[in-house]
Amino acid sequence: MKEVKVGVVGLGRLGSVYAENLAFKIPGCKLVAACSLDEKELEWAKDYLNVDFATTDYKKMIDEADIEAVAIVSSSPEHCWMIEYTLDAGKHVFCDKPLGCSLEECKRAEAAVERHPDKVFFLGFMRRYDPSYAHAKAQIDANKIGKPYLVKATGLDPEALVESCIKFSKTSGGIFIDAASHDIDLMRWFLGGEITEVYAAGTTFKHPEFTENGDTETGMAMLKLDNGTVAFLHVGRTAPHGYHTETEIVGTEGHIRVADVPWKDRTMVYDQYGARQEIIENFPQRFAEAYLLEMVDFIDCIQKDRKPELTVYDGTKATIVTYAITDSFHSGKAVKVEY
Amino acid sequence: MKEVKVGVVGLGRLGSVYAENLAFKIPGCKLVAACSLDEKELEWAKDYLNVDFATTDYKKMIDEADIEAVAIVSSSPEHCWMIEYTLDAGKHVFCDKPLGCSLEECKRAEAAVERHPDKVFFLGFMRRYDPSYAHAKAQIDANKIGKPYLVKATGLDPEALVESCIKFSKTSGGIFIDAASHDIDLMRWFLGGEITEVYAAGTTFKHPEFTENGDTETGMAMLKLDNGTVAFLHVGRTAPHGYHTETEIVGTEGHIRVADVPWKDRTMVYDQYGARQEIIENFPQRFAEAYLLEMVDFIDCIQKDRKPELTVYDGTKATIVTYAITDSFHSGKAVKVEY
Amino acid sequence: MKEVKVGVVGLGRLGSVYAENLAFKIPGCKLVAACSLDEKELEWAKDYLNVDFATTDYKKMIDEADIEAVAIVSSSPEHCWMIEYTLDAGKHVFCDKPLGCSLEECKRAEAAVERHPDKVFFLGFMRRYDPSYAHAKAQIDANKIGKPYLVKATGLDPEALVESCIKFSKTSGGIFIDAASHDIDLMRWFLGGEITEVYAAGTTFKHPEFTENGDTETGMAMLKLDNGTVAFLHVGRTAPHGYHTETEIVGTEGHIRVADVPWKDRTMVYDQYGARQEIIENFPQRFAEAYLLEMVDFIDCIQKDRKPELTVYDGTKATIVTYAITDSFHSGKAVKVEY
Amino acid sequence: MKEVKVGVVGLGRLGSVYAENLAFKIPGCKLVAACSLDEKELEWAKDYLNVDFATTDYKKMIDEADIEAVAIVSSSPEHCWMIEYTLDAGKHVFCDKPLGCSLEECKRAEAAVERHPDKVFFLGFMRRYDPSYAHAKAQIDANKIGKPYLVKATGLDPEALVESCIKFSKTSGGIFIDAASHDIDLMRWFLGGEITEVYAAGTTFKHPEFTENGDTETGMAMLKLDNGTVAFLHVGRTAPHGYHTETEIVGTEGHIRVADVPWKDRTMVYDQYGARQEIIENFPQRFAEAYLLEMVDFIDCIQKDRKPELTVYDGTKATIVTYAITDSFHSGKAVKVEY
Ligand SMILES: NC(=O)c1ccc[n+]([C@@H]2O[C@H](COP(=O)([O-])OP(=O)(O)OC[C@H]3O[C@@H](n4cnc5c(N)ncnc54)[C@H](O)[C@@H]3O)[C@@H](O)[C@H]2O)c1
Ligand SMILES: NC(=O)c1ccc[n+]([C@@H]2O[C@H](COP(=O)([O-])OP(=O)(O)OC[C@H]3O[C@@H](n4cnc5c(N)ncnc54)[C@H](O)[C@@H]3O)[C@@H](O)[C@H]2O)c1
Ligand SMILES: NC(=O)c1ccc[n+]([C@@H]2O[C@H](COP(=O)([O-])OP(=O)(O)OC[C@H]3O[C@@H](n4cnc5c(N)ncnc54)[C@H](O)[C@@H]3O)[C@@H](O)[C@H]2O)c1
Ligand SMILES: NC(=O)c1ccc[n+]([C@@H]2O[C@H](COP(=O)([O-])OP(=O)(O)OC[C@H]3O[C@@H](n4cnc5c(N)ncnc54)[C@H](O)[C@@H]3O)[C@@H](O)[C@H]2O)c1
Repeated sequence: MKEVKVGVVGLGRLGSVYAENLAFKIPGCKLVAACSLDEKELEWAKDYLNVDFATTDYKKMIDEADIEAVAIVSSSPEHCWMIEYTLDAGKHVFCDKPLGCSLEECKRAEAAVERHPDKVFFLGFMRRYDPSYAHAKAQIDANKIGKPYLVKATGLDPEALVESCIKFSKTSGGIFIDAASHDIDLMRWFLGGEITEVYAAGTTFKHPEFTENGDTETGMAMLKLDNGTVAFLHVGRTAPHGYHTETEIVGTEGHIRVADVPWKDRTMVYDQYGARQEIIENFPQRFAEAYLLEMVDFIDCIQKDRKPELTVYDGTKATIVTYAITDSFHSGKAVKVEY
Repeated sequence: MKEVKVGVVGLGRLGSVYAENLAFKIPGCKLVAACSLDEKELEWAKDYLNVDFATTDYKKMIDEADIEAVAIVSSSPEHCWMIEYTLDAGKHVFCDKPLGCSLEECKRAEAAVERHPDKVFFLGFMRRYDPSYAHAKAQIDANKIGKPYLVKATGLDPEALVESCIKFSKTSGGIFIDAASHDIDLMRWFLGGEITEVYAAGTTFKHPEFTENGDTETGMAMLKLDNGTVAFLHVGRTAPHGYHTETEIVGTEGHIRVADVPWKDRTMVYDQYGARQEIIENFPQRFAEAYLLEMVDFIDCIQKDRKPELTVYDGTKATIVTYAITDSFHSGKAVKVEY
Repeated sequence: MKEVKVGVVGLGRLGSVYAENLAFKIPGCKLVAACSLDEKELEWAKDYLNVDFATTDYKKMIDEADIEAVAIVSSSPEHCWMIEYTLDAGKHVFCDKPLGCSLEECKRAEAAVERHPDKVFFLGFMRRYDPSYAHAKAQIDANKIGKPYLVKATGLDPEALVESCIKFSKTSGGIFIDAASHDIDLMRWFLGGEITEVYAAGTTFKHPEFTENGDTETGMAMLKLDNGTVAFLHVGRTAPHGYHTETEIVGTEGHIRVADVPWKDRTMVYDQYGARQEIIENFPQRFAEAYLLEMVDFIDCIQKDRKPELTVYDGTKATIVTYAITDSFHSGKAVKVEY
Repeated sequence: MKEVKVGVVGLGRLGSVYAENLAFKIPGCKLVAACSLDEKELEWAKDYLNVDFATTDYKKMIDEADIEAVAIVSSSPEHCWMIEYTLDAGKHVFCDKPLGCSLEECKRAEAAVERHPDKVFFLGFMRRYDPSYAHAKAQIDANKIGKPYLVKATGLDPEALVESCIKFSKTSGGIFIDAASHDIDLMRWFLGGEITEVYAAGTTFKHPEFTENGDTETGMAMLKLDNGTVAFLHVGRTAPHGYHTETEIVGTEGHIRVADVPWKDRTMVYDQYGARQEIIENFPQRFAEAYLLEMVDFIDCIQKDRKPELTVYDGTKATIVTYAITDSFHSGKAVKVEY
């Protein structure tokens, strides 16, 4: 099988994870180029990852580097124009979530994808590649839990990292836009329907800065889908115990719960605090395997000229729903989702 | 301490549990009278429980039996007039949930209670006496989880008993009225606020009879409280695994989950189905201890001339909220709760 | 059914539990007499339990009180002579474990039981009545786990109570005699064989007083049975987390584990210590239901003129094995068990 | 950092895992040569792993291939002479467990290692690299559980794979030699002492072929260590639920249990079988990360000219102990371990 030459843009918290995976852990590809606004990150890419080409100018990388594919892990507002530019340059695209930061941006990405049906466009909702989520989906598809009718989604960042959340909340568009897109995607995936109406609320009891920034510390929503199913959403940033991402799919013949205890590993300690499991600390730990497996699949799609399950439209829909929830939170009213 | 002489009305599924507890398991009281429409139940009360007085006529029991207190466990529409009649006859009253079947009934019960401030009126939301729920509340009160801001309540009857639920659904007023009052009471108890707005939905994918009866197989709701806190509700009658009552209280400094696995006992089996715990089968099993402990407290209130924590108004409020949720389910709209 | 009039001897840690059960919680019996060396305990029995007859002289209670049955919960060295005296006086006997403190004592008790085949002799290995252990046994008997070939038994008293263990260790005969008889009984029950050889060890790393008293802080043993099955034993008194009694039965087609987390109740807390369950604190909490159910069965045996499953010989065998383990611990050698 | 060129010998069940890791997943190394008796395996190495050099003749690989280091994952009887030959050829050695199949073999390996103090000799007890075991050890070293005084080790292969175990049992030397060396190594690691006496037993209730082959279906042992600590061992090949490797370390101030439920992933299913977790199927799944991490460390040792924690003597000791346990099983007597 021919080796795929790849470039990466964004070497931050998440981009560095992908870059390291592409450099060392994925058969069939070679990381040859990297782009970031940060010179230190570029040094690291050259020294540690051994990339040949490193630049702060994205267009330059696309135009000049010897690559067939790009992994876009830059800041969210950069995603859509980069998608367009890359596809138009005839290269395959992996783009991390969210697709875009507005419906307009998403539509531009959709158009670019439609212009290049021969290119792989791969959307990075990596949870679908997490072995536990994938296992849950396989059981649903095998009709092991009957008709899935309710999803309960919980996504809580750890209190330990709250400071960066507070800072970020000024510009992120709010917790639902920032943190809920994975959950929205999973709801649609597991329930097999489109979200039609949302009803949201939020609470801020610990860090008033969130309210001052027009955001909320935690957010809750109830969502109705067009096939009569329902979902609950609970997102937050102050989990005292660690990084807590939990999802339950309730079906007529069985329920599946993913990560009700988000343990760090297989140890259980019995001591003066009881019988206890330590909790995983952050998303790179929790989803390390998923980040790897989705990238393996991206490379495989390119090599086999195959289309991934996730499409650009899944990205648009998730974005639309997170905006509708945000509206509902602000207005206090149920909001119909318009696609 | 003087022995309290007690009568019981209702010897059905739940009444028989209370009657046996009163007859054999509670220090300081003696069950001397029983009332039921069912002659067989009365025979059992005479033979097995050794009651002196057995009748199908409630007023007769109140007027003639040598009792100071009554446990009302008759069908729900009988509760309020029995409360009135009993208090007016100068006797203490234990009444199981729900207080009444309409706001009007509840108001009449309230008036009766207010007329007799010297009598104990004890409302049977027994979950507050379950050791696990009581433990959760004690930790909240001791400020162990910071500010509780979200309750997630799940109450699922087992599929094994669905036939009786279907039959009952014609007259019960619907799943929220029938099954959610304990959850509503716990939400108010744990979150320390009053519910102001509700948004509901329901799904019926397995037993269309529920829809035909104007009811729903499962029900979901999101609830907003006047102190800015929030609650989720999920009720149903088709749990494939058994009787599943679970409650999570989410606070700023800790979360407490009650019965995420509603195990039957302390055994874990490792076999071809994995590592597994059997699930408890029904509410009498799950809350056996709570039914006992609340009755112990009722007798203790009488002996010590003490008022219980739960008041008649808690019963009215729970009733009002379950009606509001039912409205929201039928209208598809968020509904403000009017007290 | 005729009410059985019962007397109790021993109102200490455990005797008081039984006495309260007999007084208030068991249908078909009436506690009318109590005996203890402690006057305060007798006062409590008269005032709170309403016994008519209270004495420090056991023979007097047997000779004079209007009772048909006695629950013997006095100190262990008193068991066997009391069994003899009571049976010879024509009364039914419940006796808590251990049967006796030496083989000789046990043989005298056996003889007394054989002299009175018309009387109920009931041995208090209450774990067999614990719902979880009973459930495990029922599954074994229903051939759900194939051939059970290994039992792993763990019995740890909490560090919180270690002081009284240290004091008691001077006279108790050592940890195996004091603490292992329930485990021995369960091994025989679950594995269906007789123990033929034992190999033991002990460690004392925290409280040297145990060694000074000729005892050991914790004890371990491996046991071989005559049907080719095997058992592990681990007993101790310094569990940092609480009262930990755990038993695993390993079979060819399934394993059953009882109480791998000896939780206190159904709550799980998520906080800075992880996801954790509190641990039950002591044996009266852990086995409250078992103590009740075995006594219900004792009364039922008397009323129905029925023999219990456990016999006096089970008591003798458990005693013999604990002595053999103690020998092995002291000699450092494997010891054959002679019956 | 200079890239280390590596060869591998053995491309079987385990060797193929290592080979794939060395080829694709470990920074700083390059797999260039492979050796196996099986031509198909060599084809796979050339095609899929892109090795330049492939041979059935081990000495040829050592003599001719351009490699600095070798991973020995051939059948156990081949380990020691390969170690000698490789070290004497001036190359670094990774060798999987067991070190050798007899004390004599082990001593020859020791001598070779001593002859080449400048070379890395790395012994593959990969469990020490499993994140959960490593976490347990870190907590012990940080004195979180006080003095560890007891290890309970369980290692059960799944019934699903029993046929190959039966076949292998004719020549493997028996279950203790074949399956217990990891557990022995962990006992020594966690307890910090040397095993001095062992007492063993075995049961065969399902597959009499094991007995016919002079082996046993399951094996149990109790082990005493020179620092007064103790260990239990339970090994088997008929776990009905999957691959079950569990270890508990009991300390005076805390217990740590690793993998009491050997779950496959983070899902919990609630259905007619109860609340259950699927079990991991085999050792490559269970220890995938450990196999990777130990090899990362091997390469790092070479690059940094560092010695690993595990020495050749650890391999010898584990071998000696598994032989002593086997003796005890056959003789039925406690056996002193002679080093
Ligand atoms: N899938 C997930 O679970 C997950 C988790 C975290 C972040 N993300 C997404 O990943 C993306 C990156 O997040 P992060 O946390 O790593 O951010 P970050 O701020 O840590 O890093 C952003 C990176 O993008 C680079 N960058 C930004 N604009 C650029 C431009 N114009 N040209 C070249 N480089 C540019 C920066 O130099 C930096 O290297 C975001 O879209 C975020 O939503 C996804
Ligand atoms: N707290 C809980 O968890 C819980 C659980 C189940 C039921 N309940 C409540 O308990 C009450 C009884 O429920 P159940 O399931 O036992 O019902 P059931 O139908 O099994 O029994 C009803 C009993 O009331 C008696 N009764 C009805 N009308 C009477 C009258 N006019 N005079 C005398 N006796 C009369 C019947 O003879 C029967 O003995 C209901 O109000 C129900 O909501 C509470
Ligand atoms: N089944 C179990 O799990 C379990 C648990 C604890 C104790 N036990 C057994 O129960 C028995 C009592 O233990 P405990 O912890 O309650 O002891 P304890 O020391 O607290 O109480 C002993 C009681 O026996 C009375 N007594 C002793 N000698 C007497 C005599 N000659 N005449 C009258 N009364 C006498 C004492 O006055 C006291 O009331 C022991 O045999 C013990 O092994 C069993
Ligand atoms: N660490 C662990 O958890 C673990 C697990 C399984 C096996 N092992 C060990 O790994 C080793 C291999 O086990 P396996 O299950 O992969 O065995 P296997 O039988 O599947 O494979 C053996 C491999 O060694 C090769 N081989 C044998 N003799 C050779 C020789 N003289 N020259 C060249 N190649 C030779 C064979 O061709 C084959 O590729 C054994 O020592 C075993 O004890 C360790």
